[in-house]
This record gives sequence, structure tokens and C-alpha cells, in this order.
Amino acid sequence: MKLLEERIQQDGRILGDEILKVDAFLNHQIDPELMAAMGEEFSRLFANDKIDKILTVESSGIAPAVFAGLSLHVPVVFARKNKSLTLPTTVWAADVYSFTKQTTNQIMIDQQFLKSGEKVLIIDDFLANGQAVNGLLKIASQADAHVVGAGIVIEKTFQKGRQILDEQGIRVESLARVKAFVDGQVAFL
Amino acid sequence: MKLLEERIQQDGRILGDEILKVDAFLNHQIDPELMAAMGEEFSRLFANDKIDKILTVESSGIAPAVFAGLSLHVPVVFARKNKSLTLPTTVWAADVYSFTKQTTNQIMIDQQFLKSGEKVLIIDDFLANGQAVNGLLKIASQADAHVVGAGIVIEKTFQKGRQILDEQGIRVESLARVKAFVDGQVAFL
Repeated sequence: MKLLEERIQQDGRILGDEILKVDAFLNHQIDPELMAAMGEEFSRLFANDKIDKILTVESSGIAPAVFAGLSLHVPVVFARKNKSLTLPTTVWAADVYSFTKQTTNQIMIDQQFLKSGEKVLIIDDFLANGQAVNGLLKIASQADAHVVGAGIVIEKTFQKGRQILDEQGIRVESLARVKAFVDGQVAFL
Repeated sequence: MKLLEERIQQDGRILGDEILKVDAFLNHQIDPELMAAMGEEFSRLFANDKIDKILTVESSGIAPAVFAGLSLHVPVVFARKNKSLTLPTTVWAADVYSFTKQTTNQIMIDQQFLKSGEKVLIIDDFLANGQAVNGLLKIASQADAHVVGAGIVIEKTFQKGRQILDEQGIRVESLARVKAFVDGQVAFL
């Protein structure tokens, strides 16, 4: 998606060898017009898949997911990372390791919001090592829901996320595919 | 906002004396069409305030905030609750006590995304005891930004949030004002 690639070139910042910071428009400050355009693109990509529901993980997945949900006319469920006092005990849950934060979080979805046979689309901001999407796949499997694919805002193709999803037969559609950081610039596939 | 009040009556669940669960359409499962309608309503209420930016707190504030941002054509910044390894040390920060979770979190915004003189609108899902909005007010004060008001999805008028904001001269616009829970039903002001 050209609009997104241009924005990454303009406002993305590279930290070290592997981290691309896009907190100027995606995961701290958010550009709603860009999110709406991305939502329409996800909708176009999965228009024929009869999706019932979108799944994502708090917090950075929420903005792209709700605009995809608006365009596809389906509800969005975001998995929660921390168990709150009011969360019911009847949840689907999976462990997710964050390489960036070097911590393991349990993510969970209330069982009433994910049912057997539902066709779900996973949306997330990044696909790097695939841990978050894999956690949502585990949750969907517990619920006996059918995952039609994963819509990713930014994929880092030099990490193993896509391979992990390919091995499970999951269709992946990424709006921007970053293949390397070269001389402080982002190179796309 | 009638559409929202009807949805609360239909899908809200009352827990104990003080908790209204709206996780069927607002803060776990999200109804994007309802969020878009709420965003337009916030935009109408604050149309003449020349807003530069919307502030909210992860995670439940993000969905209403991004649609308000889309309607008002301004960026949205969500305060983060946990310090990640990649968050810079140059942040505005405030402590927020959660009565629901009985924990204190530090919320923070990168200083590059909130500047002196910016006119900001605070959006949040609930106004109960006012702690989250008050945290954002402290952050805005640190940045010397000007808060034009607070747009709240659901206000519980029997708790002290509005009083705390009134005392600071903050204009509050709530889309639904819950005055009591009567016989398992939600009563609006």
C-alpha cells in the first residue's frame, strides 16, 4: 500500500538492527485518515471471505482493526493482556512472548465473544516473530473458530513470523513488507 | 445520545452496585458502526473549538477517540500504561489509580507528541471517579497544552468524576449519563 510505505519512509524511525518505530502515526500517535484508508484496503483484500468477526490484540491493533471492521461491517474483539478483576473466568487464553519487551503476557478473550464456527480475520499492527498472531490462532483454535487469514499493517520479512503462519496454512496479507533497513532507510519487498 | 443509551439498555450488564459492563460493544468487543456514530457526535459537540489533537488512554479509549479524530480531522495520541523498552525517557507522565482494578498505573505520553499551546480534546470510555481524565489533565499541564474539554462515552453521575473536572473548569460532554442502577436496569439522567 503506497500511502503507508510513503508514511513509513517519512515518519518511521529505525532503532538498532530490528526495531522500526512508527509511533508518530500508528501505535502511540494515530493518524485516523491513514487508519481509515488501511481499513478499506483490508476490507478489499478479504471482501469475499464472508468474515463474521475481526480479532486483534490491545493496544496497537485496535485502530486498524476497528476501521477494517467498519468497512467489513463486522464487530471487532480485542484480546486483553492483563487480567482485570471484572474479567470473567470463562475466557480463551494463550501465552504471548514479546521479543521487544522481553516479557510473556497472557492474552485472553471472553468466550461469549468468540464462538464455534465463526469465520474470523486477525488484524495486527506488526508481523515480526509472529507471537501475537500465533496467540490469537491458539485462541481461535480453542473456540473452534475458523481463521480466514491475517491482515498485517507492517510485516518485517527478515523475521520468522510469516514462516510460522505459512506452516499453519494461514493466508497473510501485509500492507507494507519491510525487507531490510539499509543505511538508515527502510527497504520494502 | 439515544443510539448509545438504547445499546446500553440492550447489551450492558450491571455487576454489583457500581460496575456497568459494556464489553459487548465498547471495551472488549467493539461495534465499529456505533463508534463511528459516537465519533461524529463528539465532532459535532466540539466543532467550534479548533482542536489540534485528541488525547486518550489505552486501551478502551482508543476506538471512540480514533473515530472522533477522523471526524475532526486531527491526530489521536493514546497514553501508554506500561513502560516498554523502546519508550523514550522523554515522556510526560502521571499516576492513575484504578478503583476497578485496585492498582496504580503510570500513564505516559512521548513529549514529541504533545506540545505547548496545542488545543486538545480528551476522550475516554468512562467517567466514574475521574482518575484517568485527571491523569491526562496533569500530562497536558506538564506539556503546557490547553484542554478544551473532555468527551466521555458513559458518565456515571453517582461517582465524583464530573465534580473533580468541574472544579478545574473542564467542560465535560458525555454521550450517556447513567444516574443509577434500579432493579437491574440502567437509569439515565
